[in-house]
Amino acid sequence: MVKRLGTGTLLFENMPRVEGFASVVGKKESEGPLGALFDKTEYDSRGGCETFEEAESRLQQEAARLCMEKADLRAQELDAVFAGDLLNQCTGSSFGLMHYGAPYLGQYGACSTMAQALLMAAVFTESGAADHALCVTSSHFCAAERQYRFPMEYGAVRTPTAQWTVTGAGSCILGKSRGKVAVRAAAVGKIQDMGVTDANNMGAAMAPAAADTILRFLHDSGTAAEDYDRIVTGDLGLVGSGILYDLLRREGVDAEPLHDDCGLLIFDREAQDVHAGGSGCGCCASVLCSKLLGELESGVLRNILFVATGALLSPTTAQQGRSIPSVAHLIHLTAVE
Amino acid sequence: MVKRLGTGTLLFENMPRVEGFASVVGKKESEGPLGALFDKTEYDSRGGCETFEEAESRLQQEAARLCMEKADLRAQELDAVFAGDLLNQCTGSSFGLMHYGAPYLGQYGACSTMAQALLMAAVFTESGAADHALCVTSSHFCAAERQYRFPMEYGAVRTPTAQWTVTGAGSCILGKSRGKVAVRAAAVGKIQDMGVTDANNMGAAMAPAAADTILRFLHDSGTAAEDYDRIVTGDLGLVGSGILYDLLRREGVDAEPLHDDCGLLIFDREAQDVHAGGSGCGCCASVLCSKLLGELESGVLRNILFVATGALLSPTTAQQGRSIPSVAHLIHLTAVE
Repeated sequence: MVKRLGTGTLLFENMPRVEGFASVVGKKESEGPLGALFDKTEYDSRGGCETFEEAESRLQQEAARLCMEKADLRAQELDAVFAGDLLNQCTGSSFGLMHYGAPYLGQYGACSTMAQALLMAAVFTESGAADHALCVTSSHFCAAERQYRFPMEYGAVRTPTAQWTVTGAGSCILGKSRGKVAVRAAAVGKIQDMGVTDANNMGAAMAPAAADTILRFLHDSGTAAEDYDRIVTGDLGLVGSGILYDLLRREGVDAEPLHDDCGLLIFDREAQDVHAGGSGCGCCASVLCSKLLGELESGVLRNILFVATGALLSPTTAQQGRSIPSVAHLIHLTAVE
Repeated sequence: MVKRLGTGTLLFENMPRVEGFASVVGKKESEGPLGALFDKTEYDSRGGCETFEEAESRLQQEAARLCMEKADLRAQELDAVFAGDLLNQCTGSSFGLMHYGAPYLGQYGACSTMAQALLMAAVFTESGAADHALCVTSSHFCAAERQYRFPMEYGAVRTPTAQWTVTGAGSCILGKSRGKVAVRAAAVGKIQDMGVTDANNMGAAMAPAAADTILRFLHDSGTAAEDYDRIVTGDLGLVGSGILYDLLRREGVDAEPLHDDCGLLIFDREAQDVHAGGSGCGCCASVLCSKLLGELESGVLRNILFVATGALLSPTTAQQGRSIPSVAHLIHLTAVE
């Protein structure tokens, strides 16, 4: 059963296990600091497909396939698939996963979608609704760029606060008992909106959501930041991470020494010219499903908070001058014997 | 606990109850056959807002507010909100609900989103993750038209197979024990793709998904179509409903005498010039949260299957000539006491 520690803060009494995980990334991501940890690199930005959007679907399809392979499960054994992406109407997921024929539940939390999918899979597993639930999310630089910003051919200059959308996908399967990493607890995010309207500064828009969720989780669970080996946010980048430290310090929490950000881990900011860091549903998903779960499995890490953040805007709302509401979902992952 | 009757087919042992429901619709919908059953009509298509998109957010905000009022609950008492819509990046939901400050989990299943949200809320309630979970979805004719088809000012002619996007929203709250209507069982949809590429004939694209989910549920639950008072699909319209009957008859199931479609219930097709019927995330949501739950509550209906269908395409995939993958989620609703 799931125990509620507070509004939206959940404790999983049977601790669903990670049965397998896999990541697929693009060429630029493979050249970054985590390059050796990803399962597969797709060197062609169209992935052998006709369009960038189709290529993104392929990333998701491949990540799910490799994940099933590593978990020694077939698609017919999946009770639920939780998936999402940034493309309009989440077509990266629907087109990427339809051929598996598994029960499909599309999720939308922008770049927080991987944490949301894990949370759903954990509740399904804990409740008996699923023996095996697959999570997968993706993003693609070219598909995102032309949807959110400018046509690729335009070669637009980027602001220093802008983040670089990761080309990649990450997938993991939660189940009842197999596996060395477990989901211990989670916190569902509440939407925060501080009035930021600059769509080229997502980190600033999302930091308050991360701070709110982290503070609420620490309070509800009766734990301190120091009780965890790392607090890893999804895609705040350089600007957002700094704001997060400030917001947490105001509440007496010093997260800086414990903090990593997937958007800063995946690229070498200076050498790879990605400005404030990486972003996109595929960023924290591919970092989680390579480095983070790998280090939890091998015992390098014992206990982490994975906090994925999402900016819930669209190009339309940005053009209409509206602010950027954001959300952050938190997953407490722990190593088990 | 949740019992799995088959892959994706779920039985809720404690039967989460509907604690309240509400609907808000536009002027055209209020003039249809169900007009008197909706809680509120918004006569201005901009709803006093600057844009159609903002107006859609307001529909969702109002439906959720009225639903909480009728259930005698405050936003602070909600453990989870499951919401979705058709706008790019689901901004109808994020902008409409952010001010409530409740734990937020965005869902995307196109026009099937209301059934998906109910399924999630039922699993959360059953597992202990939520005492009260709110579901809400919306659509808006003008916002959908200009996003999926043409600018409103263009006055494009519609094909006979086209459906009319409903301006409306429906909301309901699931809880543990209060209420005369319960969620007994559910089936998660599997994506179906029969190669239909005509984005003006969604009914044809979605009918195979509805047939697959209904047949799977009847098989897994060991029940027959005749065991239910009604089988109500979400938005197959006239064309899709006919195809559904054919597909089910091939498997020995005669659903026609038991069948209603929300897209056909909400409008008077002839008098209101809506071609093949209504559609949109707000169509089956507003029909469910007025006529259907009302009739279950009053005892007119005892036992129904609510089967919402969604076409998982985007304008981009349609322009790229791709087919229309579809999904249908099923909820078995029953009167209790």
